[in-house]
Amino acid sequence: AKRLEHLEKEYQQLLNAGLSLDLTRGKPCSEQLALSDDLDGILDGNYLSGDGTDCRNYGGGLGIPEARKFAAQYLGCAPNQVLVGGNSSLQLMYQCVLYNHLFGNEGAEAWQQEAGSGQVKFLCPTPGYDRHFSVCEALDIDMIPVPLTDSGPDMDMVEDAVKSDPLIKGIWCVPKYSNPSGIVYDDATVQRLARLGLVAGKNFRIIWDNAYAVHHLVEHPPLLANILEISAEQGTLGNVIAVGSTSKITFAGAGMAFLASSQENIQALAKHLSYATIGPDKINQLRHVRFLQNMENLAAHMNKHRQIIGPKFTLVLDALEQAFAGRTLNGEPIGRWTTPQGGYFVLFDTLPDLADVVVTLAGEAGVKLTPAGATWPYGKDPHNTNIRLAPTFPNLDDIKTAMDVFTTCVELATLRKALNKG
Amino acid sequence: AKRLEHLEKEYQQLLNAGLSLDLTRGKPCSEQLALSDDLDGILDGNYLSGDGTDCRNYGGGLGIPEARKFAAQYLGCAPNQVLVGGNSSLQLMYQCVLYNHLFGNEGAEAWQQEAGSGQVKFLCPTPGYDRHFSVCEALDIDMIPVPLTDSGPDMDMVEDAVKSDPLIKGIWCVPKYSNPSGIVYDDATVQRLARLGLVAGKNFRIIWDNAYAVHHLVEHPPLLANILEISAEQGTLGNVIAVGSTSKITFAGAGMAFLASSQENIQALAKHLSYATIGPDKINQLRHVRFLQNMENLAAHMNKHRQIIGPKFTLVLDALEQAFAGRTLNGEPIGRWTTPQGGYFVLFDTLPDLADVVVTLAGEAGVKLTPAGATWPYGKDPHNTNIRLAPTFPNLDDIKTAMDVFTTCVELATLRKALNKG
Repeated sequence: AKRLEHLEKEYQQLLNAGLSLDLTRGKPCSEQLALSDDLDGILDGNYLSGDGTDCRNYGGGLGIPEARKFAAQYLGCAPNQVLVGGNSSLQLMYQCVLYNHLFGNEGAEAWQQEAGSGQVKFLCPTPGYDRHFSVCEALDIDMIPVPLTDSGPDMDMVEDAVKSDPLIKGIWCVPKYSNPSGIVYDDATVQRLARLGLVAGKNFRIIWDNAYAVHHLVEHPPLLANILEISAEQGTLGNVIAVGSTSKITFAGAGMAFLASSQENIQALAKHLSYATIGPDKINQLRHVRFLQNMENLAAHMNKHRQIIGPKFTLVLDALEQAFAGRTLNGEPIGRWTTPQGGYFVLFDTLPDLADVVVTLAGEAGVKLTPAGATWPYGKDPHNTNIRLAPTFPNLDDIKTAMDVFTTCVELATLRKALNKG
Repeated sequence: AKRLEHLEKEYQQLLNAGLSLDLTRGKPCSEQLALSDDLDGILDGNYLSGDGTDCRNYGGGLGIPEARKFAAQYLGCAPNQVLVGGNSSLQLMYQCVLYNHLFGNEGAEAWQQEAGSGQVKFLCPTPGYDRHFSVCEALDIDMIPVPLTDSGPDMDMVEDAVKSDPLIKGIWCVPKYSNPSGIVYDDATVQRLARLGLVAGKNFRIIWDNAYAVHHLVEHPPLLANILEISAEQGTLGNVIAVGSTSKITFAGAGMAFLASSQENIQALAKHLSYATIGPDKINQLRHVRFLQNMENLAAHMNKHRQIIGPKFTLVLDALEQAFAGRTLNGEPIGRWTTPQGGYFVLFDTLPDLADVVVTLAGEAGVKLTPAGATWPYGKDPHNTNIRLAPTFPNLDDIKTAMDVFTTCVELATLRKALNKG
């Protein structure tokens, strides 16, 4: 009770401090963005792509050859399996889901059609990425949460679900440094996912959002099995839609996005896209390939990112360690958190039913956190424990202050509840 | 008959010449593209937009303030009525039509829903732009051709159609230098279009594709009435979707696209887009605004375009004049053509039933023309007379050769038919 009194006072002081800090979104900071400032002006009057195309003119719905080659190396496949287009991998995923749902892939029935009066559904490993979930909401696709373990989605549940319900048409995956828990799918999980299509059928889609493939926080990063290769062996390549972008490599929202699947799917997507646009911004593709060059150079570039954001993650983890290590309430840890080897987030779990309280308390003290529940479909975290921390954007001082607020709020919420109950 | 014999010989020579020329698409030529080479490197380390946003980072679904202001001046409205996004006005139009058709605008029923078991329809002034028609085809919207006169769509027919069929949900318009006939809608037509929504209802859309607003071929260009202003007065602003882009101003496909309507429509569109993307490429918007600056500078820039492409149009028109002026068959002119004051095309009309023959003859002689019928919905020109000539991309020598081939093919096709019949 004394500790609570002390915390209440501390919180009052925080309220009066007039803070305005933000740990909500996975945004790069200015220093990270500045790593790519050479993009502007890099073309130096040479606008020709490898095949002699003048990138200043119309056309090229699949992307320029060198961009397709770069993306193929990033995603682990052949260049002719890749479409490079637009600035947003989210948009490519949205378009794929929309086309499959409403119009059907080449020669395949639309999901909507197949469902008739039933409801198309997607499996959503949780905790997961809110913008994946909103694609489903926008298109009126039902979401079924499945637990995301330390090695990937609970594959027993996934396989059972797909077997028992043919209207489950897809699953969202962030296989490496998963948003937000940071886990990496293990080999067995990738193998089992690659075989899903054998049961789920030709119309099923694994949305393989490899957004953080090269975004390591450790020197010796874990490896992810190559689902495009494995599914090709299994004859299920058409079930896999793998995407990535340079948004967190160069300029966020001003990079290039890419998608890999079977050649048939790529051609079908390109045809669908051709109704809406004459082609992507090839100039920006050319800039990116000239700047990033190849996987080796990309790795060196990502190392510079790590040097900037590594200390921010360390600071967050240290603050959590200092505040909560070994501290329990009725035998349960007051806080649990992830120690990611890459990606953009730390996932924190409060004791049950406290996440929203903590987010509100922190918000009132001027520290914006991602809304509680955002990591679950429909914004409904059944245990109300997940809080996603995104430390890349603020500077170290601000993170320190924000973490002081955060840990105070967690402890305050925990003690308030414990003492009200007791 | 002697003339035919001579033409057949000439055509044989052309076949043997192994030509490979292209008058199909409205693409800028290299000299035009080079006018904008200063875009690359123009940012000079300054990535902040007018409101202090770092354009290298995520966000800004409506576009940066200065780009919205620029687009507002281009389209003739207030900046808060504008969304700037992506590289393609076609994509913005596609998305608008898709959202209205499948999901419904904020608070409005989706067209598809409203139609029930009926069929949503669009009015298509013809001759028109094939990519408008393919948007309708992709979304399974029926197309009803209405004649495009020298002053715009036949408004008696348009008004009658809209009155008699509530499932007509839109009309495609290229109001200035129409693709392909080059006509400019007169004031009375714009006034009547602006009043259409009073009859057709809230859910009706005039797609106002102002692609060639500043693309003049004459020193004193005709004026187009401001439909956004007039419809605002009529209370029908929500019926108008006006678009444009810098594709034929700077780099084709690597520019910025924009859309204007009521603020409500803009907000609804931005919300729809937010499911698919975190924001547009603001860096490219910043580049464009820094480069094009304002309407005065834009006009000077477009004058440089005119100096490059003006002589190409003159060459085409001279060739047609020389070949066909005053020449008739049974009292009917062998060819008719437009003399555009702006835009990218010359529209040529053969005698009935000859367009496809001419396109095939020219193709076999190595001169690619836009497929006959492309200017009509479903590719079906009922009179088979329209041929669209696009002279901006090739150089003057190639245009001269291509026009020799073209005029020969027209005359050959005409005489062959006349003599076979006779």
